[in-house]
Amino acid sequence: MKVTMAQLNFTVGDISGNFEKIKRVIKAHQADSELIVFSELAITGYYPRDLLLNESLIESQNQVLDQICQLTEQGNAGVVIGAVENNPNSGKPFYNTLFLISDGNIQYRYRKQLLPTYGVFSEARHFQAGNQPGLYRWRNQRLGFLICEDAWIDEEKPLYQFDPIDALVGENLDLVVSVNASPSHIGKLDDRQKIVRRVAQQCNAPFIYVNQVGGIDDVIFDGGSMVADEKGQTLAMAPCFIEDCLTVNTQSKTPVKLISYSRLGYMAEQLKLGIKDYLNKTGFSQVVIGSSGGIDSALTIALASWALGPENVIAVTMPSQYSSSGSIDDSQALCDNLGIVLHSIPIKMTFEQFVADYKNAFGNNPSPLAQENLQARIRGTLLMTYSNTTNALVLSTGNKSELAVGYCTLYGDMNGGLAVLGDVYKTDVFALSRYINEEVFQREMIPEAIITKPPSAELAPDQLDSDALPDYESLDALLRLYLESDLLSEAQKKIDLMVASKVNKGEQKRIRMLVDRNEYKRNQGAPVIRVNPRAFGSDRQVPITARLLQ
Amino acid sequence: MKVTMAQLNFTVGDISGNFEKIKRVIKAHQADSELIVFSELAITGYYPRDLLLNESLIESQNQVLDQICQLTEQGNAGVVIGAVENNPNSGKPFYNTLFLISDGNIQYRYRKQLLPTYGVFSEARHFQAGNQPGLYRWRNQRLGFLICEDAWIDEEKPLYQFDPIDALVGENLDLVVSVNASPSHIGKLDDRQKIVRRVAQQCNAPFIYVNQVGGIDDVIFDGGSMVADEKGQTLAMAPCFIEDCLTVNTQSKTPVKLISYSRLGYMAEQLKLGIKDYLNKTGFSQVVIGSSGGIDSALTIALASWALGPENVIAVTMPSQYSSSGSIDDSQALCDNLGIVLHSIPIKMTFEQFVADYKNAFGNNPSPLAQENLQARIRGTLLMTYSNTTNALVLSTGNKSELAVGYCTLYGDMNGGLAVLGDVYKTDVFALSRYINEEVFQREMIPEAIITKPPSAELAPDQLDSDALPDYESLDALLRLYLESDLLSEAQKKIDLMVASKVNKGEQKRIRMLVDRNEYKRNQGAPVIRVNPRAFGSDRQVPITARLLQ
Repeated sequence: MKVTMAQLNFTVGDISGNFEKIKRVIKAHQADSELIVFSELAITGYYPRDLLLNESLIESQNQVLDQICQLTEQGNAGVVIGAVENNPNSGKPFYNTLFLISDGNIQYRYRKQLLPTYGVFSEARHFQAGNQPGLYRWRNQRLGFLICEDAWIDEEKPLYQFDPIDALVGENLDLVVSVNASPSHIGKLDDRQKIVRRVAQQCNAPFIYVNQVGGIDDVIFDGGSMVADEKGQTLAMAPCFIEDCLTVNTQSKTPVKLISYSRLGYMAEQLKLGIKDYLNKTGFSQVVIGSSGGIDSALTIALASWALGPENVIAVTMPSQYSSSGSIDDSQALCDNLGIVLHSIPIKMTFEQFVADYKNAFGNNPSPLAQENLQARIRGTLLMTYSNTTNALVLSTGNKSELAVGYCTLYGDMNGGLAVLGDVYKTDVFALSRYINEEVFQREMIPEAIITKPPSAELAPDQLDSDALPDYESLDALLRLYLESDLLSEAQKKIDLMVASKVNKGEQKRIRMLVDRNEYKRNQGAPVIRVNPRAFGSDRQVPITARLLQ
Repeated sequence: MKVTMAQLNFTVGDISGNFEKIKRVIKAHQADSELIVFSELAITGYYPRDLLLNESLIESQNQVLDQICQLTEQGNAGVVIGAVENNPNSGKPFYNTLFLISDGNIQYRYRKQLLPTYGVFSEARHFQAGNQPGLYRWRNQRLGFLICEDAWIDEEKPLYQFDPIDALVGENLDLVVSVNASPSHIGKLDDRQKIVRRVAQQCNAPFIYVNQVGGIDDVIFDGGSMVADEKGQTLAMAPCFIEDCLTVNTQSKTPVKLISYSRLGYMAEQLKLGIKDYLNKTGFSQVVIGSSGGIDSALTIALASWALGPENVIAVTMPSQYSSSGSIDDSQALCDNLGIVLHSIPIKMTFEQFVADYKNAFGNNPSPLAQENLQARIRGTLLMTYSNTTNALVLSTGNKSELAVGYCTLYGDMNGGLAVLGDVYKTDVFALSRYINEEVFQREMIPEAIITKPPSAELAPDQLDSDALPDYESLDALLRLYLESDLLSEAQKKIDLMVASKVNKGEQKRIRMLVDRNEYKRNQGAPVIRVNPRAFGSDRQVPITARLLQ
């Protein structure tokens, strides 16, 4: 069968914009394709969450479903598309449904049976689980259907009490089709390829897996839609991180090579798409970034420049009395390399005015810690003033390790619409900076001096991160073990345990306590582009007022 | 049967602190009570959410369960208590379980069958649903068991496909026991009393309903534990908003009067407990609040003073060139009335320094909007500087109407650990201010001038809220219809529709667009004390990058 995989980048709630994309694909392929497959909840985008309560959203979506029916009156192709379906009976108000449409009508509906409700997913909040297997004979073809999670049963530790694939096995199917909205994270592409091969082999039929692409807030969908034959060989794979429409003959006998990425290459692409789509979808075109001369801001500036073009990135250096001249020079060198304008606003006078006013009111100076935070807040305020004046979005630059232990200032350097590196551990910030120079720009855009100098917040005289925190290799090992030990590979866990064991117990405990005590900061932080299997944000939902024994 | 209802205020994750409370109650009542009933997930507190992944938490909890078993070796009383149970089989990792413990051992386990996953609830994220009815014969008594949601089927629009109570009906039970963690909101107390009466009548047996009390982040549990007899008459009711241990004879024939609150009285108690518990559980004892002379900050200061005592509230007025002298005088009068110290820090010099530095760097002044926000951010920074120096928690003062339309400054007046009025519509801010004066303090603590003057942000010359927004009665009606029309009573909806119909269509659309476009601000806002059926926060989960047709 000739099947077109429509891997599109949808905006949640933008029914008319999403329909334009869908219509274009149907019109382009309905003459020569037999089946055009879109992704999960395609018309609304995956997924509107509580906006589903907005009745006009579902009404508009259903009008689009009608229009898709009409489109199938021309041409030959059937359309498979995911959409929200109202549940008129008891249970949750909606189904997450796959529609098979052809010849002007909805021919068949399959309702998702496994509703992911963990990590960034909360489908049980809105959807009622279907209870019928996805089997339908269409134009004399025996078809099987699945929706995303339906195919993702973890065989070692199953989260569900049955496997929807069991009902497809032995049914002598001609084709199995799955519509998906499968978020990316490091390692996900390999997992997904394994799943696709396994399902095809289990069902003994070609398997079409169509994924959404694009960033939705913190979550990046990586695309990479695929077709495998009944032996599990990959017959086609769409590229990752971009829209694509690939038409495949499922009877082809010529396997293709799987697309693969290095760990850092995949991380970089996630961040690039995350920046681009957040801006696109919120209506911004430019960003402004505070440039401290440190590695976090340098990497953020380089990534933004790659994603948006240097003409859309404005950097601002805001030196205080504690900023080293090296830092200012390094900022300038970075911006010169990238072709970005760097503005400079010294904060000394404003800082002194704040301190004088404070002392005048309260009779004493702010505490040393308060003075450190004050510098960060003056800088954050200047960036927001620029943002409010020019409509450039502030990107915040803090990394995951700092966010974890609260080594950052709320309403200061945490200011921003998007926390680009909020899911990138500090050790990966170093590695990614080298990767960006070597592989993306293929020259030293981020000056070597920035990569090699000892990290410092430069908020007090001669301050170094290592005064307050263990070395970053140890810190990151401790954090991974505390935050995501259940998700680590055995190999990674072994390394982290070894590294962590060299940190004394008291310090280990202090780090865990810092993680717990800084929940309030993360709770008010900007959305974090999710690159790892567990990011801060909707992925990790914990109470602020909790008191944990360590 | 003599039953003790242990209505306690737990801290999530504080296993040893929670056990101390539990132990004290068991020891005090085990000689003369036959059954001591605690609330749902009592040992961990309701509920740890993703902290459940922390294995040591469950281990500590299970050690406490063992210790409770040991405690029941003395005395006569059995103990009913909610706790997390590991699920060793496929499915979600835990059960939300009720344990019946007596004579040194766990006698019976009942696993919650309906797992609320909507609003502030996300139980399907962690728990596997039980599939056995709660029926057990203990010491020759036929007992029925339920856990919270199990009894809350909405008969008109059921969210579940079966009703756990059906299995208890006709079983000739001597007693039905329910352990609960039932959050408060306006109207909830009445709903709960109806449910309790109905279940008792349906099961034709006395019904014991024990609720948690206290604030957990944004959510306030109001207590009000109850016993109803088989006719639905209330035999006992614990007070709301405080810890209480009430021992009841379930064979009593003497009904008691139900505790009730006025709408504003209930709202005030929720806010008081919300402030108190947020501070207690995060380890703060004092708060600092910016006092603008407007009604939002006045009400916040008055509520904090009521909750914490005036000695624990610090107010700061931070006048600019746009602040009216009336505002400063009103702030002073308010603080004098309450016995609170008011500090003053004029922000003019700092503001001018910011603007001069900005102009020097960029060649132009910040835009008028940016200058308004700048004032709010200088104030927010001063409050945080005080907070970082003295360890007083900043309370933010914005109301729900402002938060909804984004009439507030991110990293400015939105700064704070807790948004006290973030779920109180502006029209209720007025009503609650009068209530506080009349009913709580029984004198004019909040000066009449503050309540009656036209609201203004005082960030530009002669600025009034009414320049940018419809009158608050209309705005609040529009907002209720857009944010929570599915939850409004028919009467309220009718009034709101009538009020809203007088606003022209273009303005109605603009308000809805403002709500959508300001999601990014709320996403980074402080936790909001939840007083209504749908607060901003975990109660309303929507994407930031969504684009809605209005």
